[in-house]
Amino acid sequence: MGISRLLIANRGEIALRIHRAAHEMGIETVAVHSTADADAMHVRLADHAVCIGPPPATDSYLNQAAIISAAEISGADAIHPGYGFLSENAQFAEVVEAHDVVWVGPKPEHIRTMGDKVAAKKTAGELGLPLVPGSDGAVSEVEEARKIAAEIGYPVIIKAASGGGGRGMKVCDSPEKLETLMQQAGSEAKAAFGDATVYIEKYLGNPRHIEFQVFGDGRGGAIHLGERDCSLQRRHQKVFEEAPSPVITEEDRMRMGEVCAQAMRDMQYRGAGTIEFLWENGEFYFIEMNTRLQVEHPVTEAITGMDLVREQIRIADGRDLSVTQDEIEFQGHAIECRINAEDPWTFAPSPGKVTYYHAAGGMHVRVDSGLYAGYSIPPYYDSMIAKLIVFGRTRERCIMRLRRALEEMVVEGVKTSIPMHQELIREPDVLSGDYTIKWLEEWLAKREG
Amino acid sequence: MGISRLLIANRGEIALRIHRAAHEMGIETVAVHSTADADAMHVRLADHAVCIGPPPATDSYLNQAAIISAAEISGADAIHPGYGFLSENAQFAEVVEAHDVVWVGPKPEHIRTMGDKVAAKKTAGELGLPLVPGSDGAVSEVEEARKIAAEIGYPVIIKAASGGGGRGMKVCDSPEKLETLMQQAGSEAKAAFGDATVYIEKYLGNPRHIEFQVFGDGRGGAIHLGERDCSLQRRHQKVFEEAPSPVITEEDRMRMGEVCAQAMRDMQYRGAGTIEFLWENGEFYFIEMNTRLQVEHPVTEAITGMDLVREQIRIADGRDLSVTQDEIEFQGHAIECRINAEDPWTFAPSPGKVTYYHAAGGMHVRVDSGLYAGYSIPPYYDSMIAKLIVFGRTRERCIMRLRRALEEMVVEGVKTSIPMHQELIREPDVLSGDYTIKWLEEWLAKREG
Repeated sequence: MGISRLLIANRGEIALRIHRAAHEMGIETVAVHSTADADAMHVRLADHAVCIGPPPATDSYLNQAAIISAAEISGADAIHPGYGFLSENAQFAEVVEAHDVVWVGPKPEHIRTMGDKVAAKKTAGELGLPLVPGSDGAVSEVEEARKIAAEIGYPVIIKAASGGGGRGMKVCDSPEKLETLMQQAGSEAKAAFGDATVYIEKYLGNPRHIEFQVFGDGRGGAIHLGERDCSLQRRHQKVFEEAPSPVITEEDRMRMGEVCAQAMRDMQYRGAGTIEFLWENGEFYFIEMNTRLQVEHPVTEAITGMDLVREQIRIADGRDLSVTQDEIEFQGHAIECRINAEDPWTFAPSPGKVTYYHAAGGMHVRVDSGLYAGYSIPPYYDSMIAKLIVFGRTRERCIMRLRRALEEMVVEGVKTSIPMHQELIREPDVLSGDYTIKWLEEWLAKREG
Repeated sequence: MGISRLLIANRGEIALRIHRAAHEMGIETVAVHSTADADAMHVRLADHAVCIGPPPATDSYLNQAAIISAAEISGADAIHPGYGFLSENAQFAEVVEAHDVVWVGPKPEHIRTMGDKVAAKKTAGELGLPLVPGSDGAVSEVEEARKIAAEIGYPVIIKAASGGGGRGMKVCDSPEKLETLMQQAGSEAKAAFGDATVYIEKYLGNPRHIEFQVFGDGRGGAIHLGERDCSLQRRHQKVFEEAPSPVITEEDRMRMGEVCAQAMRDMQYRGAGTIEFLWENGEFYFIEMNTRLQVEHPVTEAITGMDLVREQIRIADGRDLSVTQDEIEFQGHAIECRINAEDPWTFAPSPGKVTYYHAAGGMHVRVDSGLYAGYSIPPYYDSMIAKLIVFGRTRERCIMRLRRALEEMVVEGVKTSIPMHQELIREPDVLSGDYTIKWLEEWLAKREG
């Protein structure tokens, strides 16, 4: 093992997660932290700690020069970026490698490609990942639009080429309405973005979010670790994740997983990655690829028994994948609840001092958290303070265990989303797994009304 | 499922353990507690709680009438005794069943037989479990003793039939010394117990403690869940347990496990049990059978994925074993550290108020404990306050993970055995698995000296 001292360029639970994996491999850790995080648990546990500036993140966790300096000062021979912050910054990855420090992450060119929406889609298509069918670029003629829509099937969605945020977007469910809606979309787009150009795509009315975990060795070897279902979202933030998905068949898992793994082989992808899809009526549609560890990686760890951070570090160190595809066994069911310091119903952030903290325990219950009694949650960062991950032989047993684990968690001094999770896992749709990416917001709206 | 409300006739971590399993099965719980345990975590979490008297245990946890009354008052339809207290009291099991309450434990006659040293040995022998070879009862003639010793091989041990505590015990390593040592043993026995009768057994100089977990359905179905190695003991108290044993081969595991399972089939044994052996030079020698759950059951849970308390409750409810022998897969390695409230080196108990508590977390780390910050550890009971159970793909990875988990555990306000475990798992003999039942005390003596 070449890596002997790993700098963790992150904070919170993921910094602690990385510290744990490193220590279990006999690797020393270097914590870098802002002045607001001097008392963070991972800073206390790390072998070395370097303060890299004040909050907000731009002055510390996003300060590339400060992090590189910290690596040099502390003698770190590798950097793990975690998720968020600099984890998908191709230029930072290049700088790290230029300093002869091991980058625990994908090749910079892959981070760059997948970070560019248009390039990512193009690459995905070339790699054989299923895309949302639609016009290959702008559509100006109604006749052409009719032909495309007939081909991909109604409903379709007309989108502004320069758009975003729902402006210039029209869902069309029949050929008769196409002309009118195209004109409306074009006018709105012109007004909003100064560009009337529109394109057409298949409209996914109520899909699920399904993502595949992949790993590549950077030399053409790659595996997949099955899917995660992260459909329960609020404002595009995942709230509750599970593996396997309640709706994906064993056959689809292995077929689609293999498509993803083959794409990674063709790219010679290195390290951990997640390929995200929308899923509707049995079909997968590529959205994007995340070239980093995901928050929800522990549910995959629970059903495969693999330590994904260890695997990342091994690969960065130039070693082979620790398993072949055939050796990966999927067993049981796992669910992760993201616990945030926020009002459980208004979602207003609730930073401040944690006066009491008690983690859930017992069989097949995992808590990933930097919380401790007396810790002050700073107001500058993401509100996620803990992840509760529960495993069970079946989905039903997993949910029963989650229920009792949530009863045991105690966080006092700040508001948390625990009460929301407690209600959520009593909802019949959640119990039956019958939910889509719209479900959570509709439930919250109904509850409020 | 017939059982709907389970009374937990115990305290501490095992009461919480049983509560968790019950809640995960949708069963309500009734905590019974002494006045000293009113604030215990399992009492707080249980659906119902009944105070059954003051400490010491004779006035509460051992008060059969009070417990039966609590079951009647609370409408409990089953009683789980945990370990210790009334768990191996056959008469209590009979009383419970006579009150039409389900006894979550073995049949009373099996508890009785296995609780009687002589009857247990006789039964074990009849069931085909390997015994320590020796004279079949008292030996008075030197010639007979010589014959037996020659048959079983030297060294042998001469023991007082009425004895105990080492009095009247002599180890003999050659035929020449046999006569003298028999006379000495007889005289000592006469002086100490008023009875000069002695018997002869094979002497196990430095064995390991290996025990097999078994489960029977009470109707002739039975399985084994492999072995645990509990050789690291101090004053016959287990301190550190692991599964599988570093010295038991896959072949021996399956062969000896099957001998144990077959014995349970022949007995029509019901529920969980542990068959304990001494092991030396590749041979197993029956010591005793525990007709209850063991403290160290979680290491077996970790390597089999089975929830043993759930299995106990299912069986008590008249259901079949949840798995066949063929379905049981042993994966990876697990270690349990018993964490006691005591001085880590003098072992003087250290009850009192826990001013701060932080459990270890992360992947494959399990904490079974009723501790919380602010809890007062009462001085009346066993000093064990937490069990830290860690799993890894290999023994080496398990130990590395244990090391980092022990770094994370914080208990303030009382002394604990955490520092001892931290030193223990750095010892080369522990790392290599090269220890016997004498190792820990010798290590402690050396450390002191």
